[in-house]
Amino acid sequence: MTVYDIIDSKKKSHTLSEEEICYFVRAVADKSASDAQIAAFCMATLLNGMTDEECFALTKAMAASGEKTPRPAFSGLCADKHSTGGVSDSTTLILVPVLCALGVRCAKYSGRGLGHTGGTLDKLQSIPGLRVDLTAEEFERQVQDVGGAIAGQTDRTVPADKRMYAVRDVTATVDSIPLIASSVMSKKLASFADVILLDVKTGDGAFMREPERAEELARLMVRIGKAAGRRVCAAVTDMSAPLGDSIGCNAEVREAIGVLRGDVRNALAELSLFHARKILRLVRGISEPEAARETEQAIESGAALKKLEEIVAAQGGDIRALYDETLLPLAEVCTPVRAHADGVLRISALALGKACVELGGGRKRAEDAIDHTVGFRLKKRAGERVRAGETLAEMYSRGEAPPEAVRLAASAFSVEESYRVPPLIYRWIGEEEI
Amino acid sequence: MTVYDIIDSKKKSHTLSEEEICYFVRAVADKSASDAQIAAFCMATLLNGMTDEECFALTKAMAASGEKTPRPAFSGLCADKHSTGGVSDSTTLILVPVLCALGVRCAKYSGRGLGHTGGTLDKLQSIPGLRVDLTAEEFERQVQDVGGAIAGQTDRTVPADKRMYAVRDVTATVDSIPLIASSVMSKKLASFADVILLDVKTGDGAFMREPERAEELARLMVRIGKAAGRRVCAAVTDMSAPLGDSIGCNAEVREAIGVLRGDVRNALAELSLFHARKILRLVRGISEPEAARETEQAIESGAALKKLEEIVAAQGGDIRALYDETLLPLAEVCTPVRAHADGVLRISALALGKACVELGGGRKRAEDAIDHTVGFRLKKRAGERVRAGETLAEMYSRGEAPPEAVRLAASAFSVEESYRVPPLIYRWIGEEEI
Repeated sequence: MTVYDIIDSKKKSHTLSEEEICYFVRAVADKSASDAQIAAFCMATLLNGMTDEECFALTKAMAASGEKTPRPAFSGLCADKHSTGGVSDSTTLILVPVLCALGVRCAKYSGRGLGHTGGTLDKLQSIPGLRVDLTAEEFERQVQDVGGAIAGQTDRTVPADKRMYAVRDVTATVDSIPLIASSVMSKKLASFADVILLDVKTGDGAFMREPERAEELARLMVRIGKAAGRRVCAAVTDMSAPLGDSIGCNAEVREAIGVLRGDVRNALAELSLFHARKILRLVRGISEPEAARETEQAIESGAALKKLEEIVAAQGGDIRALYDETLLPLAEVCTPVRAHADGVLRISALALGKACVELGGGRKRAEDAIDHTVGFRLKKRAGERVRAGETLAEMYSRGEAPPEAVRLAASAFSVEESYRVPPLIYRWIGEEEI
Repeated sequence: MTVYDIIDSKKKSHTLSEEEICYFVRAVADKSASDAQIAAFCMATLLNGMTDEECFALTKAMAASGEKTPRPAFSGLCADKHSTGGVSDSTTLILVPVLCALGVRCAKYSGRGLGHTGGTLDKLQSIPGLRVDLTAEEFERQVQDVGGAIAGQTDRTVPADKRMYAVRDVTATVDSIPLIASSVMSKKLASFADVILLDVKTGDGAFMREPERAEELARLMVRIGKAAGRRVCAAVTDMSAPLGDSIGCNAEVREAIGVLRGDVRNALAELSLFHARKILRLVRGISEPEAARETEQAIESGAALKKLEEIVAAQGGDIRALYDETLLPLAEVCTPVRAHADGVLRISALALGKACVELGGGRKRAEDAIDHTVGFRLKKRAGERVRAGETLAEMYSRGEAPPEAVRLAASAFSVEESYRVPPLIYRWIGEEEI
């Protein structure tokens, strides 16, 4: 068996055996396969597809490619959530404290923002002093002692995926459903969460623009998780417009705190609590109304915000940032974006996400630094009727905004004669449905 | 325009513009495209194909990627020949002197042997002192003064092809008809030959095993050549059995000299003179009987052998080797390979070629050195009736032959109840037929 033969088989649309897939993944991890061979394998997979069995084997082999962390000895199920990435999506910052406040442990591994999408780790680091580079031991101990932790997976967790992803990123082989599914799920299987909720975004601000493809990906990931003995469910949700009303790290953290305080009632709050209810029901086996009552109670009682404070403190963050917005400053120049006509507002998550990158609030390349203070606050929501001249949003920039940011921001808002906002939740895929 | 976008387009089966293809080839040559990107492009091309226009543009761009050598100022057409590679194929050593003796200039660029196939440059270097690394200036001057030269193209001639081929070789992307055609033809277009004869081998000892695919490749290469303003024709010829009766560098040079002396009359002689007639007709516009008379005359008169002497001398080789076989020695241990039954002989070019590699007479990797003295001499030909115990071939090895060579040699000869030898020439594709 050689890497060459395995690429050749996939090229010829043969089904690879588990042994061949394990061999390939080991060669990726130990660097005996070259970048060119990884690229050829990924392109052949993208064009010829994979069976479920091949995809299960690939995911399992990648998950096994790194350091193993044994599940800590706590009782009860431990939850994780994964979103495929979007704009103004700070559900993690709401979901984790709500669940922890209700006694559900959360071992949440998050990522950085890239391209037009934001990343939870960047947002968390808006809080002065907060560390997201927890060691495996620190992470486990915090999940055990505090009930929840939000951190990045180390390079050593799933090295085969890290290498494959770096190659896919420059070879136009990212958008393969089996490769996306195995990449996401390998990282989830390498962690010790028992219950995993997958939020697959769709719409123009998502990587999977068409709901059908998003659903296909969601179903495959649920099957992979179940095949590996985890309890997995998925939602296909809208990312045509930004989820919340804020874009940019500090603005989004402020908004998430607002939801936990009960002050903010928007799609972000709605989706976060939807996810919380679904996980709560899986863990506790309770009814929807019971789950709804409990999650609302976690917010109304202040228990969820208190739990966020504990998590922030455990990770070395300054908890005063949760109560003092001056510690989460917005950039000094605020420029209104106005409606150019009367009509129904449509907002492009993609254009706003890109505008935020141009303001310095996101990354074009993985090594870029980001500015936490810049971004947008929406004053109107998609589907709302607006009048010409009304302020639709405020843009926060450090000094004068770059022309490209202004152009993208303007293009993000269109006023149409009629526009029907897509449903927030396209599809729910419970673990029993697969 | 970016390399990423171009890969993405090919992946989506879009037709690439000439501009996009030129951009990609420049990025390959100047190394701004990574090996992984080249691999992804090649796999997408292999699986999604290319239009003729894309393939023409790719070939032209690769041909233009290196140093240009202007056509020397001689009158009359200059010829070149290319074979896709086989076993016991020393047609070049016969064809070039025959044509030169008849006043047709030959600017013959040749290659090294790799895998089970032999290479003309290796065979030429059996002649003591002979140089095949001529500079562009030396090559041109020799074509002008002597009438012909046989040498290797430098790494600087078609650097984009060199890099692409190195990536294809390890990523299972060699067997793509548009990629093979553009690789072969880019090297031909980078040279100044006006008339090009392509010999596309088929059968188990060829890279294109099926005659249909070999013909498809041949026709595409003829179209590419014509689109570039060259006069191109092609033959699809058999490589199920070795072409000549000798395998191994020194043995093959001896045999080629035998053909030029008029002593050897076999398929090698037949195909070499077929090619010579076809080129002669293209250059001179004469009839088949006239061409046959002239080529036979070139051999009978000794003019062709005399011309080989001139070429060898011009390239620094010891011309005594053409007349004294002790200067082309065979390895000291000669082992007979015998028939195991009565019946019709079938010989596998692939197995014999591999056996020769195991004896040290070929290369597994491009950097391997080769032994010119080892190899085989066939005593019986494919399709001949043989009796059990008869000697079918002699194996020449330096010391005791390695067991793998003995095993391959034995497997190369099978005696069957009936076996019909495939035609030597499957298909002729004249320039007017496309």
